[in-house]
Amino acid sequence: MTLFKLDSQLKNDSLPVGDLALCQVRLLNDARWPWLLLVPMRGGLTEIHDLDVTARLTLAEETAQASKALQKLTAAEKINTGALGNIVRQLHIHVVARNEGDENWPGPVWGFGHKQPYDDGEADPLIKQLQSELDVKIL
Amino acid sequence: MTLFKLDSQLKNDSLPVGDLALCQVRLLNDARWPWLLLVPMRGGLTEIHDLDVTARLTLAEETAQASKALQKLTAAEKINTGALGNIVRQLHIHVVARNEGDENWPGPVWGFGHKQPYDDGEADPLIKQLQSELDVKIL
Repeated sequence: MTLFKLDSQLKNDSLPVGDLALCQVRLLNDARWPWLLLVPMRGGLTEIHDLDVTARLTLAEETAQASKALQKLTAAEKINTGALGNIVRQLHIHVVARNEGDENWPGPVWGFGHKQPYDDGEADPLIKQLQSELDVKIL
Repeated sequence: MTLFKLDSQLKNDSLPVGDLALCQVRLLNDARWPWLLLVPMRGGLTEIHDLDVTARLTLAEETAQASKALQKLTAAEKINTGALGNIVRQLHIHVVARNEGDENWPGPVWGFGHKQPYDDGEADPLIKQLQSELDVKIL
């Protein structure tokens, strides 16, 4: 079994929120959309169907939990979820809060324009709310 | 409980493959990428987290089954899955076969360029293989 190590690009592009049972939860460092990454802490995965059935069901529940929390905290009109991995192959799930009129609405967030990192401390309130709402383990 | 009726845009944009226990499976009528839609046959749904937990786990398994089948049949390098729904709100899951060098690689398929409908009968072999691989009920 391959050990889990967070991909360096995923790490550099995001801020830690905390750990659920299976996934690390991170906030993408892009202020254009509230955008979570869920990364299953298992090595050698690229596709959701690579997971065994138990882990896959846990992933589905953690994704739903993250979606619900993000929609509640941001009052988003729509949640977009996706697992692409065309650039970074380590399995990761995107959970993005969308609203009519946001950047590239109603198109996808992936590959659009240039990221706009949060200012120092700007993301802290959302991260704290997510930690509380998701009841994550904070490292 | 709202009755299920397939959204007319989803219907017009795709070709029927068959039914799994929860979802209708359809092939998007766009020859640029082998692209499946899974539509849970329940009314009034827009978000995956709107489903009850049992249906959500069934959806996760049917999505994994469709991903695996599509990857096997097309030998795709990567599967992209997504639930966006910014345009059509009826809950539907995209499962797309991607390969290095395909249109808009490594960007997303959604909202890119213009669709290229299959010629008459062109999609039939893939649809037949999917029906057999997924063991769907054919209506």
